[in-house]
Amino acid sequence: MVRINDNYLKLKAGYLFPEIARRVNAFAEANPDAQIIKLGIGDVTEPLPEACRTAMVDAINDMGDRASFKGYGPEQGYPWLREKIAAHDFQGRGCEVDASEIFISDGSKCDTGNILDIFGKDNKIAVTDPVYPVYVDTNVMAGHTGPANDKGEYEGLVYLPISADNHFTAQIPSEKVDLIYLCFPNNPTGATATKEHLKAWVDYARTNGSIILFDAAYEAFITDSSLPHSIYEIEGARDCAIEFRSFSKNAGFTGTRCALTVVPKTLTAKAADGSEVELWKLWNRRQSTKFNGVSYIVQRGAEAVYSDRGQEQVKALVGFYLENAAIIREKLTAAGLTVYGGVNAPYVWVKTPNGLSSWDFFDKLLQNCHVVGTPGSGFGAAGEGYFRISAFNSRANVEEAMKRITATFNG
Amino acid sequence: MVRINDNYLKLKAGYLFPEIARRVNAFAEANPDAQIIKLGIGDVTEPLPEACRTAMVDAINDMGDRASFKGYGPEQGYPWLREKIAAHDFQGRGCEVDASEIFISDGSKCDTGNILDIFGKDNKIAVTDPVYPVYVDTNVMAGHTGPANDKGEYEGLVYLPISADNHFTAQIPSEKVDLIYLCFPNNPTGATATKEHLKAWVDYARTNGSIILFDAAYEAFITDSSLPHSIYEIEGARDCAIEFRSFSKNAGFTGTRCALTVVPKTLTAKAADGSEVELWKLWNRRQSTKFNGVSYIVQRGAEAVYSDRGQEQVKALVGFYLENAAIIREKLTAAGLTVYGGVNAPYVWVKTPNGLSSWDFFDKLLQNCHVVGTPGSGFGAAGEGYFRISAFNSRANVEEAMKRITATFNG
Repeated sequence: MVRINDNYLKLKAGYLFPEIARRVNAFAEANPDAQIIKLGIGDVTEPLPEACRTAMVDAINDMGDRASFKGYGPEQGYPWLREKIAAHDFQGRGCEVDASEIFISDGSKCDTGNILDIFGKDNKIAVTDPVYPVYVDTNVMAGHTGPANDKGEYEGLVYLPISADNHFTAQIPSEKVDLIYLCFPNNPTGATATKEHLKAWVDYARTNGSIILFDAAYEAFITDSSLPHSIYEIEGARDCAIEFRSFSKNAGFTGTRCALTVVPKTLTAKAADGSEVELWKLWNRRQSTKFNGVSYIVQRGAEAVYSDRGQEQVKALVGFYLENAAIIREKLTAAGLTVYGGVNAPYVWVKTPNGLSSWDFFDKLLQNCHVVGTPGSGFGAAGEGYFRISAFNSRANVEEAMKRITATFNG
Repeated sequence: MVRINDNYLKLKAGYLFPEIARRVNAFAEANPDAQIIKLGIGDVTEPLPEACRTAMVDAINDMGDRASFKGYGPEQGYPWLREKIAAHDFQGRGCEVDASEIFISDGSKCDTGNILDIFGKDNKIAVTDPVYPVYVDTNVMAGHTGPANDKGEYEGLVYLPISADNHFTAQIPSEKVDLIYLCFPNNPTGATATKEHLKAWVDYARTNGSIILFDAAYEAFITDSSLPHSIYEIEGARDCAIEFRSFSKNAGFTGTRCALTVVPKTLTAKAADGSEVELWKLWNRRQSTKFNGVSYIVQRGAEAVYSDRGQEQVKALVGFYLENAAIIREKLTAAGLTVYGGVNAPYVWVKTPNGLSSWDFFDKLLQNCHVVGTPGSGFGAAGEGYFRISAFNSRANVEEAMKRITATFNG
């Protein structure tokens, strides 16, 4: 009989967000009149920028004429999109990234999972704790871990705790690890990394022959001009880092789907025979064989982000969510809660009051305020006692949610 | 130092289509005036149906209003699309497939590769020869094979030869295999399977505890009413088959990207402890963790395929390519060539004349006729001496290509 991939059975029941959905649905069924406000999952709510919509309608028109119709595109993405990304997001910030090193995809979730395809089974993997669960779960599924313990920590993974005690920046490990996932601005804590902090990681990676998997999905929320947007702003990162980016959070593409991954041609890893192999070649082969490129229509929408009008509209969109974050920070602080993040990031990371567990605080907010957030413990054992509030919602919903929380916690 | 996935190094240099592109580009550079007609890669050329385009423009308008804006959709696809597919493509043909068993994706290439994620490493894998290269290459990348021999056959895979001798239907293997890839109407040979042939496979799979990975990407080209469109038309298939389908070839979505995979909830495989695990649960977990769903806009386009107007337009599109196939069959036969397929399929499978190898025939067609096809040997060792001509092109190009071939081979 056919055998399954037994590693799937090691996964803890329920990915975080389905479990939240389950509790919210149960509450909504029992309380049909409750006006629930969702500040949980990091999903955008505001309309897609007009520049992107106009470009996509034009692209659909292209599809209606055999002279401009587009069939299979390059698996790596269209050159006109890759070139604009290279020029604007990287070269414009002094990063040496060529268009050919950029791979367009349908999502950073896919890419951060799929990237493991090109790596061997015996690499030592490090993640921060708390962490975006996809990094962990995809390693479990790929067989890179043993089973989970009672705290939900998987055997074989190296967890780097981040908390208020270390200002939410992980300490460089003393042991040697091969692959390190870093996410700045951070999901879930909203923390940012200085150039000095990233340089310490790059130096560590180069010394130890490690590779940093750098998730920059939230870089558009950086307003502090001293903070790096890309790991390639750090000298030497081309030799030790892969970077993931997305149009989800800057241009509101969570339901439209477009992202990108940068694999520098200078990045290598070791084969069984000891030779060094270019990872660009492996990722290119992986994408050519297992992927057929992103919809032409969607790529045209992403390209419009780089037009003058697109840039203006994306800035307005990001600014809007950052104002939400500022309101959340202010109101929660006034309600006596301790908050982190939410300045150069769309996430506010709240210390749960009175020693409540993350899930207890979740239930309390849901039941008393009809507000949904994300329990910090869902992101890892060290997230226990914290809670993530997302700034992705309408102004009216954010203000109403804060009013309810203030009434509950000041009451 | 970080270790790579060494299985990638077993892959034979260059996936088939990049090698074709290389030769065509070299020829085009040396002969800048040549009007090259491409009947190689199976890519559509005619405009996207108006019903799909209209629905996608409407969807973009939805994205422009916060009341109808769509963020993250269900990773499995929107219920309104899954339900229409279930009703029209399956239940309408007497297949017991529920909407919840349908997973919307961005391509069958992705799905046929990614499906291996949920299976163990020690399954015995069978493919036909010739075969769609993605089935083989993704197994190599996943470490399910040894190295390739001189003929390009990978150690550990079971190859089931298909040729004119067995009417392009593989013999049911005498040995026990676990996973079997079947594709009908077949890419590359254009052969079809009768219900009796599929029943023999289903019976074999049920007897041996095997699973059939059934690729029905070309089912829309079936005009013979006695032929099954889905493996689920065969009794018992729900217990032994996963089916892949695509909007690429029926509705011209190769550049728009939408496909689907059916995993029946009755389908199980064995865990290490001997228990039987529902594959639906594993695939659902895989997709929830490593995928974020298909663009809302594209799913609305796919939904429009099932409207009355959409059905009419898709039928016209498929009919157009089938007429191309009929012209190719007729002209090549008149030129003295022996041809197969091209009746219920968009591919014509040509026996190379005068004992020419597949690549020699490729070069001859390119140099003498400026026509690009696909060498049969690129699909596997048993494809040697055959050649695939695709019906996906404009009428004018098909007629011009056939004129040139006729002149060369009758000359």
